[in-house]
Amino acid sequence: MNAPFEQPAAAGKIMLVGIGPGSVDHMTQRARDAIAEADVVIGYVTYIKLVADLIEGKEIIRKSMTEELDRAVSALEAARAGKKVALISSGDAGVYGMAGPTYEVLFQSGWTPEDPVQVEIIPGASALNSCAALVGAPLTHDFCAISLSDLLTPWPTIARRLDAVAMADFVVALYNPKSGRRTRQIVEAQRLFLRHRRPDTPVAIVKSAYRRRENIVFTTLDCMADADIGMLSTVLIGNSNTFVRDGLMVTPRGYSNKYDMQEGGATREGERAGRSLSTGLLGWLDTLRAEHDAGAGIEALAAQYRLPADYIRATLDEPWEAETGTAADGSEA
Amino acid sequence: MNAPFEQPAAAGKIMLVGIGPGSVDHMTQRARDAIAEADVVIGYVTYIKLVADLIEGKEIIRKSMTEELDRAVSALEAARAGKKVALISSGDAGVYGMAGPTYEVLFQSGWTPEDPVQVEIIPGASALNSCAALVGAPLTHDFCAISLSDLLTPWPTIARRLDAVAMADFVVALYNPKSGRRTRQIVEAQRLFLRHRRPDTPVAIVKSAYRRRENIVFTTLDCMADADIGMLSTVLIGNSNTFVRDGLMVTPRGYSNKYDMQEGGATREGERAGRSLSTGLLGWLDTLRAEHDAGAGIEALAAQYRLPADYIRATLDEPWEAETGTAADGSEA
Repeated sequence: MNAPFEQPAAAGKIMLVGIGPGSVDHMTQRARDAIAEADVVIGYVTYIKLVADLIEGKEIIRKSMTEELDRAVSALEAARAGKKVALISSGDAGVYGMAGPTYEVLFQSGWTPEDPVQVEIIPGASALNSCAALVGAPLTHDFCAISLSDLLTPWPTIARRLDAVAMADFVVALYNPKSGRRTRQIVEAQRLFLRHRRPDTPVAIVKSAYRRRENIVFTTLDCMADADIGMLSTVLIGNSNTFVRDGLMVTPRGYSNKYDMQEGGATREGERAGRSLSTGLLGWLDTLRAEHDAGAGIEALAAQYRLPADYIRATLDEPWEAETGTAADGSEA
Repeated sequence: MNAPFEQPAAAGKIMLVGIGPGSVDHMTQRARDAIAEADVVIGYVTYIKLVADLIEGKEIIRKSMTEELDRAVSALEAARAGKKVALISSGDAGVYGMAGPTYEVLFQSGWTPEDPVQVEIIPGASALNSCAALVGAPLTHDFCAISLSDLLTPWPTIARRLDAVAMADFVVALYNPKSGRRTRQIVEAQRLFLRHRRPDTPVAIVKSAYRRRENIVFTTLDCMADADIGMLSTVLIGNSNTFVRDGLMVTPRGYSNKYDMQEGGATREGERAGRSLSTGLLGWLDTLRAEHDAGAGIEALAAQYRLPADYIRATLDEPWEAETGTAADGSEA
């Protein structure tokens, strides 16, 4: 039979594409392919410009900055109509990007993973990765990302996070540090950090990483709030070991805790390559028990190690387990 | 004159290449190009296998896991001999990767950025980006990365960080959560988290993201330590708003603080699109002042907002500055 009949619409797809810092060079192959196979490309106007070379002939939907939920709704409408949609985010689509709002809109609409509309998230290098690569190696130890935008987050939540990570000596990347209207958040962040960190803690301010107007400034915590910071800046605050040398910001991994770097890397007394430090978990528990047995009280130990007293008590109460594993521990990084 | 004379050796280069999760699809163009232009490729054996298709005919130096400093020394030697060296890391070269140890070795050797040996860091999607992309959208709000390896970091430092971010309600990615020898760290991490977070807090364990043996397990905080976790696992712990629905882990950005998602996204009373929340910094300062004027003491306010008393006092003492900016605030993400 050749009589015409209505075909069911082909299933559409939403691809959440992290385009990396902005230069096409630093986009993944899968991100390029996703844009190539898309019928529709949706994104903030600036991001659309960054991928201009890749989107000729496609339907383009440009949105302003505050229209994240609209972008997700437009993507779902186009996908319901059978189209393949690339919803683009700078950096990584999951890090303060469109992945979250899109799933929120999809769930709200009754979508499930069994729906004909499929969803794919394509990871990319986030601002913290690209900014770090440009300034040296600041993220070689534990780090965190905090957005200073209070457009959707109450300030006490943000302040509590700043205080906690300043105290616990993380390397910190501040996203959305400042805008035309939001100028005091960075001052408050500085105030909270200075309660715990030295005034000369290294800070790098990276604007438009890997883009035409790329600009990098090194400063210190006590001068941070006076620096030129804008909507396109990421602020990287070092930990207590981070240093700047010859224009490079580096956070040591901790090799000097185990090896004598001056002595050609000889292992320090009491330490073994490929094994936990003598101050690692099991060694520390031994010390803790010995100190407790010698008369140190729980509160005194808590104060000494700056850890909660009930944690000290609970871990001392845990039955002793000898080191049993046999597999190689692996990387020291 | 055609008499032979000794040419100065051509300048070598060290390229620190983040290859992304492991699938060549998720590598950036610049990472591929760097490997293509390299004379020598240095890396941990497993990472060398991941890029096997790209390195035919090149000099390959395979190192074991614990030889990070050796890898950096080998790279410098080859570069000093005029070679272009790709030193590869999985994920991002800056995130617990080779960028840090390499700069430590370079500085130790007297290298400066004016040296003929040039250094380039090529960012990639880190484990947290790729694991997040596979499980949904867990990193849509503030997050941090903590390595549980105590091979170079004293346990009290790690424990203090776990305690701080559990309290401050971050989404947390645990790197190096467990190995053959290190089995108790994840138990201690769970203990510290359960002091602050609900037992049913969502946890995702991602093994070998985008590789052949990729495996994803969803569990909850109270069962986390009993899950199958190994050297190639990343553990993602949600914040207090993170939920799992239909096999997807999502952290809301906070749109429901401003918009009524049930009512087609109408703006809630007292809130404005594109502006800070009424509980944002300036709104909160107004409230704080009013509460203080009405008789609430500094200590009471500190307890109410779970912030340090001296911070509350300092910010109340700061002279009032009216909202002055005129530029658009921009993104709510």
